[in-house]
Amino acid sequence: MAASVLVVTGTHGNERNGPWLQEQWQRQPSNLQRPGLRVQSLLGNPAAFAHNNRYIDRDLNRSFTKELLQLRGSQELEVRRAQELLACHGPAGSSPAQVLLDLHSTTAAMGSCLVVYGERPADLALAAACQGQLGLPIYVHGPESRQSGFMVSQWPCGLVLEVGPVPQGVVVPLICSQTALGVYCLLDLLSAAFSAPLPLPAQLVVYRHLRSLDLPRDADGRPTACLHPERLRGDWRPLKPGDPLFLSTAGHTIPFTGKDTGALSTVFSNEAAYQEKQIALSLTRRELVPTSKEWALALTAVLQG
Amino acid sequence: MAASVLVVTGTHGNERNGPWLQEQWQRQPSNLQRPGLRVQSLLGNPAAFAHNNRYIDRDLNRSFTKELLQLRGSQELEVRRAQELLACHGPAGSSPAQVLLDLHSTTAAMGSCLVVYGERPADLALAAACQGQLGLPIYVHGPESRQSGFMVSQWPCGLVLEVGPVPQGVVVPLICSQTALGVYCLLDLLSAAFSAPLPLPAQLVVYRHLRSLDLPRDADGRPTACLHPERLRGDWRPLKPGDPLFLSTAGHTIPFTGKDTGALSTVFSNEAAYQEKQIALSLTRRELVPTSKEWALALTAVLQG
Repeated sequence: MAASVLVVTGTHGNERNGPWLQEQWQRQPSNLQRPGLRVQSLLGNPAAFAHNNRYIDRDLNRSFTKELLQLRGSQELEVRRAQELLACHGPAGSSPAQVLLDLHSTTAAMGSCLVVYGERPADLALAAACQGQLGLPIYVHGPESRQSGFMVSQWPCGLVLEVGPVPQGVVVPLICSQTALGVYCLLDLLSAAFSAPLPLPAQLVVYRHLRSLDLPRDADGRPTACLHPERLRGDWRPLKPGDPLFLSTAGHTIPFTGKDTGALSTVFSNEAAYQEKQIALSLTRRELVPTSKEWALALTAVLQG
Repeated sequence: MAASVLVVTGTHGNERNGPWLQEQWQRQPSNLQRPGLRVQSLLGNPAAFAHNNRYIDRDLNRSFTKELLQLRGSQELEVRRAQELLACHGPAGSSPAQVLLDLHSTTAAMGSCLVVYGERPADLALAAACQGQLGLPIYVHGPESRQSGFMVSQWPCGLVLEVGPVPQGVVVPLICSQTALGVYCLLDLLSAAFSAPLPLPAQLVVYRHLRSLDLPRDADGRPTACLHPERLRGDWRPLKPGDPLFLSTAGHTIPFTGKDTGALSTVFSNEAAYQEKQIALSLTRRELVPTSKEWALALTAVLQG
């Protein structure tokens, strides 16, 4: 018996680097083979990929809500695709997977990171072990998050691997190799976790999502400032009250005026897809979280089904 | 009497930095005022801008062909918009402009450059004088170019200012300031040229368009290689036979095998919008062209109308 892992690329059709890797994996499936694992990869949103758009009718990675998954006969392509993915590869599907890895890219200068939703023990174990190997930041959306319907939430264990900066619509070898590095590390860890609970670092460094900030706007809703160049030099860096935040159309620096709750930093600064959501960047708080042996046990339990 | 100059931003609706500047210019029109000039700026494709797409029905900057401009009752939004722009601001329009500056951005690492179509003397004078001031590269499409329907071709004098790299859909202050620098230099020169023929540098350095290269593809038309990382380090650099060109999905470097016609270099490497046109990059030949006093006279004649 092996654990089944599903690697999804192109959940957003204009993020081309994951699908590029998947083409390679279809030619050389051995890249994804690991002892104890049965790994499949597939294109999340083939229709959006064909159009080189993020989505056709709605964001697939916000379509895995209970309400949408129960809808019958939806006109929205992504609602039907979410139902289909779950019917095929969900935990109760015809070809079930225990773990889902969802590969994304961003226009923000974030490097590589893992995104964890809901702080489930198995997810935290995998993220902590991966951080122990690669040192990458972990962005945590708590269970109270206002956003919902993320694909990984419907699988017993699932993480998003996010890599940037890269424009939408192009393949960049460095982004592909960074993505592959993350995937291979995660698969190595899942393979080990299938045999025995993973040894975890003593603590996990997480960047906990606090809230998102919109650009300043005029009465007609038009932005009157853009992100300050300082904010575009890279994410995960500290943001303190008084630090440059926006640059007005008149060229004035608008500082961050939030309270200093300590250890604030930014993510997703100038992610192109979030412009329509009126998100200029998101604020996080850096936290040290002691790991728990229970997490590693939970991951192994998920994998051993 | 003054010469009229039209500055067009957002000809492609997902290139957001020109429109960002235009918002500033609407609040502070003095930025565009120059002695002897009447400068207007407008959004090229408001519908595409509202949707944050390059275009709605077809590329507006390929819609200024004789055939399309003569069509009556076209269903295509951009055909109607091209006709409208020409009816309002064309040389025979209700509010005619002599010069059109068309602002674009690219995902390619090209820095700032001017694009010249058809080697018209007035265009070459303005480009040469601007190169004399800013040193930026000039990309020349000869009159034999297979592509056609560019907006600037319908005005007596017109250049494209292209700035990158920047993802589609986001505003980046550095890209805005580079774009503004180019526009202000061009307006200063047009203002001077309105009074008297411009002094030109002795020669113009141009990168003449030769042809575009597609990615290698399999029998089903799927790319089997992406651009090599060496090609993404920046455009305008020499490309010699044997230099890395593509990187195959299997990780092998595919070298450039073209003949060494001397002084080849690349432009628009990994421009996201050209993926659908199957253009991975374009090849140019660097040439030194002696300038001519006739060019400067032609420009002044256009401006004095």
